[in-house]
Amino acid sequence: MVFSDCSSATTARFLPFNRSRLPADSAVNIGRVVGPLQWRLPNPVSLQARSTLAVHSWSSPSLVINATMGTGTSAKVIDGKAVAKQIRDEITAEVSRMKDAIGIVPGLAVILVGDRKDSATYVHNKKKACESVGIKSFEVRLPEDSSKQEVHNHIAGFNEDPSVHGILVQLPLPSHMNEQSVLNAVSIEKDVDGFHPLNIGRLAMRGREPLFVPCTPKGCIELLHRYGINIKGKRAVVIGRSNIVGMPAALLLQREDATISIVHSRTPNPEDITRQADIIISAVGQPNMVRENWIKPGAVIIDVGINPVEDAKSPRGYRLVGDVCYEEACKVASAVTPVPGGVGPMTIAMLLSNTLSSAKRLHNFK
Amino acid sequence: MVFSDCSSATTARFLPFNRSRLPADSAVNIGRVVGPLQWRLPNPVSLQARSTLAVHSWSSPSLVINATMGTGTSAKVIDGKAVAKQIRDEITAEVSRMKDAIGIVPGLAVILVGDRKDSATYVHNKKKACESVGIKSFEVRLPEDSSKQEVHNHIAGFNEDPSVHGILVQLPLPSHMNEQSVLNAVSIEKDVDGFHPLNIGRLAMRGREPLFVPCTPKGCIELLHRYGINIKGKRAVVIGRSNIVGMPAALLLQREDATISIVHSRTPNPEDITRQADIIISAVGQPNMVRENWIKPGAVIIDVGINPVEDAKSPRGYRLVGDVCYEEACKVASAVTPVPGGVGPMTIAMLLSNTLSSAKRLHNFK
Repeated sequence: MVFSDCSSATTARFLPFNRSRLPADSAVNIGRVVGPLQWRLPNPVSLQARSTLAVHSWSSPSLVINATMGTGTSAKVIDGKAVAKQIRDEITAEVSRMKDAIGIVPGLAVILVGDRKDSATYVHNKKKACESVGIKSFEVRLPEDSSKQEVHNHIAGFNEDPSVHGILVQLPLPSHMNEQSVLNAVSIEKDVDGFHPLNIGRLAMRGREPLFVPCTPKGCIELLHRYGINIKGKRAVVIGRSNIVGMPAALLLQREDATISIVHSRTPNPEDITRQADIIISAVGQPNMVRENWIKPGAVIIDVGINPVEDAKSPRGYRLVGDVCYEEACKVASAVTPVPGGVGPMTIAMLLSNTLSSAKRLHNFK
Repeated sequence: MVFSDCSSATTARFLPFNRSRLPADSAVNIGRVVGPLQWRLPNPVSLQARSTLAVHSWSSPSLVINATMGTGTSAKVIDGKAVAKQIRDEITAEVSRMKDAIGIVPGLAVILVGDRKDSATYVHNKKKACESVGIKSFEVRLPEDSSKQEVHNHIAGFNEDPSVHGILVQLPLPSHMNEQSVLNAVSIEKDVDGFHPLNIGRLAMRGREPLFVPCTPKGCIELLHRYGINIKGKRAVVIGRSNIVGMPAALLLQREDATISIVHSRTPNPEDITRQADIIISAVGQPNMVRENWIKPGAVIIDVGINPVEDAKSPRGYRLVGDVCYEEACKVASAVTPVPGGVGPMTIAMLLSNTLSSAKRLHNFK
């Protein structure tokens, strides 16, 4: 069983929770460094006995998620792959309805600067995902030595283009470019990544609505919703405070009336806090950091980490694990997302969802 | 002793912590409904024996805050009045230095719509505070039935006026005006209140810097700094999640590497969480809600609440108390802010500080 051994094939368990010893930007890049379409490892879900979990919060009441029950364990497996598939089907139907009603097809523009292979793969995956749901994709590839002005010109063009409803600048940018200034150039109306500070500010403020919510944390909350997991009044602990996952995830949970705590690299004894949580969202990029003694019995675990660890038995020489020791979590939690197949597939689904919402808003289509 | 009796003169202790039973917007209006210059009650600090607390984080190392030690109690009293005075003296010196060096005087514009007496008093107090430090104040008073357009025109005028470095719209606005739209019209460069979502977004994001931090939470953190209270690595619990105090206070604490939790009206048993805190900031507007059993021995308490409670013995028929039962807090905490005389005086001091910073930034004066 792929995920049976938290205590081997990773040195992480011996490391204190200390950002300086984490892979650089490991959590920050999660959604982009290891895109969901790259995974080639067998999905642990397929190795386990299946049971069915009724879902309370479906938009369509007839829909039911197939959840899996780990063999010999108590936790339900939150099947992000199945939920993402479901969402993409819903988006496909909405895109088609919109096209039929007003002749508009949502459009997503992606700007890629430089020739990083991994970035090219993610852009390719996003393009494929767009095609699969009927969203039109636009792509600009610029050489590594492009000027900041060239990138800004393309962003300005997409900002003006009425057939583009979402703009995404693939990160990381070449080192000579100021990421913040480039991202700020994207129109707030088309910021489908939701990283603009104005969107984050609105997310933080009661009575304000962000135009877009960042994709990965939105995917985490969507998993909780689709599995009918109650958030209101619950203790929720977010591990990690990155701008693109941890912080917005905490703000989203608070918007739903959870009582949030955020633990991070400067938190002494984080397990004392996570052990109080009804819901844990972990996004630090530290393999198998969250152990059994970090988890309250019956807690729900959303594992955002996607960490490659050496594995001589794998044809690739590595396998992917989450921030959470999956096998141990299965014993004590009531529900847990696997890695891969948990949060990962949700990120692109939420990007498509944000693009569709943007097109609906810009064309006032309900 | 004014604050000797948490268990009488307020019915709050019998109420569950439930927003629906709180006075409307009680926490939200704290800084504006009861301005620090209004207080007429004797300051408890003057009733207590004085001791001296060396301060580690003064910008000028020769400065020392006179802290008070409550008679027969263990907690040091964090003297917001003294700190605010100190800050105003520093601002006076800086305003003078700026004027001498480049001939520029910082300017604060206040717009008051309608004829609410309380609002008029706060505007008057702000004007007086400006005068006392040498900041020029501009004031526009508009009748209750002014149009939104008139208010916007004045804001636009101040946005353009180079002698105005901060713009403040006194709240609440008349009910026919959209507060959000009016506040959004204030230039982000002159938003000395720090309430613009772009400022809040930058406050939430690592690696970003807000142009302004909201005055009351900034005042809370300044008190901790000036009293040399360590924040990094500490457990901090914020009670209340309002846009203008609780939420930004939590973001500020996290920026300083505290591990934050935010409890609010939907939190069951909030005392279970506050009892873990090294630092508590309470901003809910619930008189004497935080009792001895909510507080970890040795914790530092910043009480933002300013709540009038009936008091037949007072010439006014009421007295002001905080969210925290002061007498009980004095027994168990290591340091505590009184009400009045704690956070209150800091709010206007921070408004003056934000106005000075804005003038320095706009004129590139270091």
